[in-house]
Amino acid sequence: MKTNKDILTSTLPGFMELLPNEQMVFNDMLETIKSSYELFGFIPLDTPVLERSETLLAKAGGETEKQIYRFKKGSTDMAMRFDLTVPLARYVANNQRNLVFPFKRYAIGKVYRGERPQAGRLREFYQCDIDVIGDEVLDINYDAEIPATIYNIFKKLDFGKFTIKINNRRILNGLFDSLNIADKSKSVMQTIDKLDKIGLGAVEKGLSKLVVSKDSTDILMKFVQTKGTSEEIIEKLLKLKIKNEKFKTGMEELSQVIKKAREFGLPKKYIQIDLSIARGLDYYTGTVYETFLDKYPEIGSICSGGRYDNLASTYTYKKLPGVGISIGLSRLFNQLYKKGLIKMGASTPTKILVISIDDKQEVAYKFTQLLRQNKISTEFSYSNDKLKKQIKYADKLGIPYIVLIGEKETNENLYTLKNMRSGKQQLLPVNEVINQILNQK
Amino acid sequence: MKTNKDILTSTLPGFMELLPNEQMVFNDMLETIKSSYELFGFIPLDTPVLERSETLLAKAGGETEKQIYRFKKGSTDMAMRFDLTVPLARYVANNQRNLVFPFKRYAIGKVYRGERPQAGRLREFYQCDIDVIGDEVLDINYDAEIPATIYNIFKKLDFGKFTIKINNRRILNGLFDSLNIADKSKSVMQTIDKLDKIGLGAVEKGLSKLVVSKDSTDILMKFVQTKGTSEEIIEKLLKLKIKNEKFKTGMEELSQVIKKAREFGLPKKYIQIDLSIARGLDYYTGTVYETFLDKYPEIGSICSGGRYDNLASTYTYKKLPGVGISIGLSRLFNQLYKKGLIKMGASTPTKILVISIDDKQEVAYKFTQLLRQNKISTEFSYSNDKLKKQIKYADKLGIPYIVLIGEKETNENLYTLKNMRSGKQQLLPVNEVINQILNQK
Repeated sequence: MKTNKDILTSTLPGFMELLPNEQMVFNDMLETIKSSYELFGFIPLDTPVLERSETLLAKAGGETEKQIYRFKKGSTDMAMRFDLTVPLARYVANNQRNLVFPFKRYAIGKVYRGERPQAGRLREFYQCDIDVIGDEVLDINYDAEIPATIYNIFKKLDFGKFTIKINNRRILNGLFDSLNIADKSKSVMQTIDKLDKIGLGAVEKGLSKLVVSKDSTDILMKFVQTKGTSEEIIEKLLKLKIKNEKFKTGMEELSQVIKKAREFGLPKKYIQIDLSIARGLDYYTGTVYETFLDKYPEIGSICSGGRYDNLASTYTYKKLPGVGISIGLSRLFNQLYKKGLIKMGASTPTKILVISIDDKQEVAYKFTQLLRQNKISTEFSYSNDKLKKQIKYADKLGIPYIVLIGEKETNENLYTLKNMRSGKQQLLPVNEVINQILNQK
Repeated sequence: MKTNKDILTSTLPGFMELLPNEQMVFNDMLETIKSSYELFGFIPLDTPVLERSETLLAKAGGETEKQIYRFKKGSTDMAMRFDLTVPLARYVANNQRNLVFPFKRYAIGKVYRGERPQAGRLREFYQCDIDVIGDEVLDINYDAEIPATIYNIFKKLDFGKFTIKINNRRILNGLFDSLNIADKSKSVMQTIDKLDKIGLGAVEKGLSKLVVSKDSTDILMKFVQTKGTSEEIIEKLLKLKIKNEKFKTGMEELSQVIKKAREFGLPKKYIQIDLSIARGLDYYTGTVYETFLDKYPEIGSICSGGRYDNLASTYTYKKLPGVGISIGLSRLFNQLYKKGLIKMGASTPTKILVISIDDKQEVAYKFTQLLRQNKISTEFSYSNDKLKKQIKYADKLGIPYIVLIGEKETNENLYTLKNMRSGKQQLLPVNEVINQILNQK
């Protein structure tokens, strides 16, 4: 039976909390994403978690309104952000005179959605977003730089081969126009988008329900199933000879983005046109992306986004086209964790534990300071426990090295460095200790 | 008149939001704190922003209950954390079997307090906490390592000379015992704590109201005004010959902490005993700290904390003594900003903007990738604008370097590197460009 103390100490369902070794890995992933975003010149932005409900919900619909954490404090109706895009739109609208366009920003922060508790669904989770916002116009090349950035990140994160799947909404919309089903485009898009989840038969059934003619459904089904290399798909689509300006523009954009992304260093096999990627949201107007781990497609897209014509029409009259992508880091971490793909390491950033024996604390303190001056995370063992127990502390935390400082060491100016993994012990001068640890990192 | 769009795009009062150049400085400060905490071996911990109200308020009283952001979603009564200490207590209680003690953790995150809007009072703000938690016992030396860590941080932050003021609650409590005013210790402590804000006269008046005899008030006033170097203060206090075990223990602890902090590299003039530091909170039982910028005492304490006997009595039967300190970074940033003490730099992490002229994009892309492989934050200019406008983009953002790549550069394998600050232009091979930028950082 759970006691009251047990209930008091547990987190709410859907709120992730990690143990030290897990947190260390999570933070490493976060740091990899952050440093890659900065490497590509994205500017950090941190907006409040709480905003006016009116602001956050200005454009939102059904599901969002249900899931949002909203409340009143005094007379103010406020809510917790459910994504990082709405705050970005508000921010850009609010600060447009002080920003330099194209405005490349990244944001890494927690967002909140009170979803029904299902396996793996988190209510508080990190999103890691980048967006490039143009002033009235935005070069199509930015659509190619986004997947190049993502490639850089997932190569470093090292969870195996992945594929960035890419499509263009103008191609879909142009096709709908030519089939005279533009009025149903939203529902058709949402149905196509479910292909991965529900399969071909169900999509076909869904489309039949929406689309008048069987011919149109057939064309759509054939369309989304067009396979091959990106080049082959483009070739096949061109052969359809669809006479529609939107379609044509979409094709040109998609070809250009594929070509440029490769020039920006994204290898061919990591980016692939997939005509079934539609991104159900109204929001997107051009390029759309989803990213999958080749070996674990069941995880679903680990990184999605796209191009939009206008970021902030609710907040400003200025036209702000943009392109962006988001990594749902908490969910990704959770899924990889369950599959045993997260390699656990140490439970602490400490690289070395300094232990003083024979009452040589003062020398040991100096040594500790010297290591820290060399940017080596160091702990001094204040314990009065027996040596064995002090070493056990390092062992339990996964601290890779210990140094023993005693009478002998002090007299000879040599220090005993013990590698906790190999068990190897060496007697070394200070500089050698420092070099070895710095080179180890 | 404010239009509806203006209201929609503003943040709530008390919620800080920064422009890019400000955010860059803020993040640098955050990073300095984080890396120093890790340098001293503190383990990162990230707990949810939302918790059960019952959990967060288990021990809280008046002001906290009024200020907390609390609401119901479905049948769950939840609230946003108002500090990082209560979540730490819950976490340690919940995970005690999986943690290694002493548990040294740091936490950097936003906390929420719906305070009445006053000048400078934030409702959402970052706290940067470290705590060391012992299992039943915790060595007094940790009380000395905390100020050594803080010294390391504020030296790097470089806002001028600061002083860590230190006292011990046992000294105060022992004195109260000897004056037979232990029953009023809380109110007396809170009155003394206001000395900096309300002045001597007002404290004396406040004490008279609380304490029966005039003699006791006189002794207290004399006590809190005891001045001199730390050594002199200790000497003067010992001369008082107060026969009280608590007082004696407090004196021993304080002397030991001062001595050890110096051995850990904290210069004498940065730490100073101040007997008027009481820390009004019930919570603290031994060492207490406050930190002041010498030139700007009006900012108040920029970093405070202390020793407590038991972290989590509400959540567990295990005794968990600890010592910790907190930097209120958002408030500190705000105060320094108002005083013009924040040195603004660039509005982007980008170190170099690559501009292709004469249609040499492919060479320029390769160059961009090479710089990024060398961990240099680089942007490629996709603009079709005139060169002058592209250079202006770099100028506005404060990007320190641009590289021009054209016909001549491509043929000769030499690249034009322009230092945007000095205006100096050099024709250099790739490696020289990389070296110059890496050495500049």
